[in-house]
Amino acid sequence: MTEADPSELPLDIDTLKTFTFTRVLSQAPSSGSVYLLGKLRDVDAIVHLQQSVLPTEQASEVIQHGLERLDVYLENRPYFSSHAWLASRSFPDLVIKVICPATETHIKKYTAQERAMVSETAEMYERIVVPYIHSFPPSRVEWVYNILAGKKEAERVLYKDDDPDHGFMILPDLKWDQTSMSALYLTVLVQTRSIRTLRDLTPAHLPMLNKIRQTVYSTCAENFGVAKNKLRLFIHYQPSYYHLHVHVVHIESEGFMGMTVGQAHLLDDVISLLELSPPAPEPSILARMTLTYLLGVEHGLYQPLVEASESIEEKEKA
Amino acid sequence: MTEADPSELPLDIDTLKTFTFTRVLSQAPSSGSVYLLGKLRDVDAIVHLQQSVLPTEQASEVIQHGLERLDVYLENRPYFSSHAWLASRSFPDLVIKVICPATETHIKKYTAQERAMVSETAEMYERIVVPYIHSFPPSRVEWVYNILAGKKEAERVLYKDDDPDHGFMILPDLKWDQTSMSALYLTVLVQTRSIRTLRDLTPAHLPMLNKIRQTVYSTCAENFGVAKNKLRLFIHYQPSYYHLHVHVVHIESEGFMGMTVGQAHLLDDVISLLELSPPAPEPSILARMTLTYLLGVEHGLYQPLVEASESIEEKEKA
Repeated sequence: MTEADPSELPLDIDTLKTFTFTRVLSQAPSSGSVYLLGKLRDVDAIVHLQQSVLPTEQASEVIQHGLERLDVYLENRPYFSSHAWLASRSFPDLVIKVICPATETHIKKYTAQERAMVSETAEMYERIVVPYIHSFPPSRVEWVYNILAGKKEAERVLYKDDDPDHGFMILPDLKWDQTSMSALYLTVLVQTRSIRTLRDLTPAHLPMLNKIRQTVYSTCAENFGVAKNKLRLFIHYQPSYYHLHVHVVHIESEGFMGMTVGQAHLLDDVISLLELSPPAPEPSILARMTLTYLLGVEHGLYQPLVEASESIEEKEKA
Repeated sequence: MTEADPSELPLDIDTLKTFTFTRVLSQAPSSGSVYLLGKLRDVDAIVHLQQSVLPTEQASEVIQHGLERLDVYLENRPYFSSHAWLASRSFPDLVIKVICPATETHIKKYTAQERAMVSETAEMYERIVVPYIHSFPPSRVEWVYNILAGKKEAERVLYKDDDPDHGFMILPDLKWDQTSMSALYLTVLVQTRSIRTLRDLTPAHLPMLNKIRQTVYSTCAENFGVAKNKLRLFIHYQPSYYHLHVHVVHIESEGFMGMTVGQAHLLDDVISLLELSPPAPEPSILARMTLTYLLGVEHGLYQPLVEASESIEEKEKA
């Protein structure tokens, strides 16, 4: 075999036949998705297999005319269960994506990171998380400030109030293609730069938070015909960037990680806990709570938080 | 065509060819699952199609030897995307389940219920939810009491403390097949019958809740080799039955509805909020909070809660 030249590599069945498997990088068995690392003609490659899904509109047609073979494996009238093979397939079986040549950066990106639950007390927030947030240069959230200043994505904005203290902006999240209403996903960005996480919220922010909730409701009703009781509004902790933002998701968008308890905090719950909190400068319930969440073990906060927890447990035992 | 006799109906391709489609009962497009209502030889039938998933262990083999056709639809080196067709399939394309004849009860069971978010204040809990809970005969949770009394499922119990006030039991949830540790799912049932929901919890319950947490951790480590930081413990609101129970799920079990914010409340959060609550008889933060969650519109609580919310909104406007 001649030495492979990555720049010339064509993607075809003959090339895929040269695949030598190294390891599974990550997988989601329930949706039939797997990332494999290996080599194609001696060049590092990541191959992603994703099962195609039978379009619901074709289901009835498939039952009537599309089957080639049926193996009934359970019959307990009125219940029947069977395995079925399609006679022919107008839609593909798989979506196969290839990254070749794959660099270390690609491999790291698609490798499942080990994760673990951590608990963060109010004291740990002040001592570990606040300095961590301050360690980032302001340029890290420059992209947020550019949106808020109207320099970027201005044509996408659905609602905008420029008041520097209480204003906010509503825009479609990049994850949403704006076609299916049951996949509706918006983001609310506040104007103020003073709120890093939900721990910084106080009862003084209640008017802004209530206005966010009401404005999201009216924006979704007017722009998309989606009623307020079909929406879930939540805030992440830890957030992926330290500038307060609210996620707005249709209730039919179910079961994805970003809505899992611990990671997600309902805006309604946040408002209710602030209503039950003493006025500033007393710390709010959110500031005083121990917050528990899932964190990648390579996240910058993981080791410091685990060490702090262990030292608390040591003291309790002593 | 002769009149169909449901008791004689065989499940085969010829029978499925007679399918006349009435409507989609429910669907989960992301996993390729759809329930269709229709008729098979003039008999009411529910047909469930579920896409098979490519076993991860076969993925590498499929790439090397299993492909018949490849259509590359994007090439932007090093990135390639393609649709692929399998050459032959040792595993079936679909699992097809049929209920025939299908009764009204079957149809209702598989029909997607419309759902909506509701918000329940502390006042609404006392006035609407508590009487609703009391409206059920005690026999409704007799199955729980039978487990707690050792009359049922005794051989499955992993931990047991019979103290009537502070004791509890840990057992595998029926949803868990006990083979894959990343699908680990346990249930904790408390002995006391005095706690209907998390609103009834007070700081006096903290020793029991802390002991539940510690005992779940040690039980999972000893029995299954699963470390405590790989577990998510949560309580549902509304629960499916009104006797306090805690769900224990491995963090790799992702993205299912029962862990969604609003429905699920982390035991860690519950403990933290009770620690910040005044001692009884003062109501706890959990008792005073407005709780927001998804509810089926046919749930017995839905209409009363919506009407109560509307009357609050009327008053606020007035």
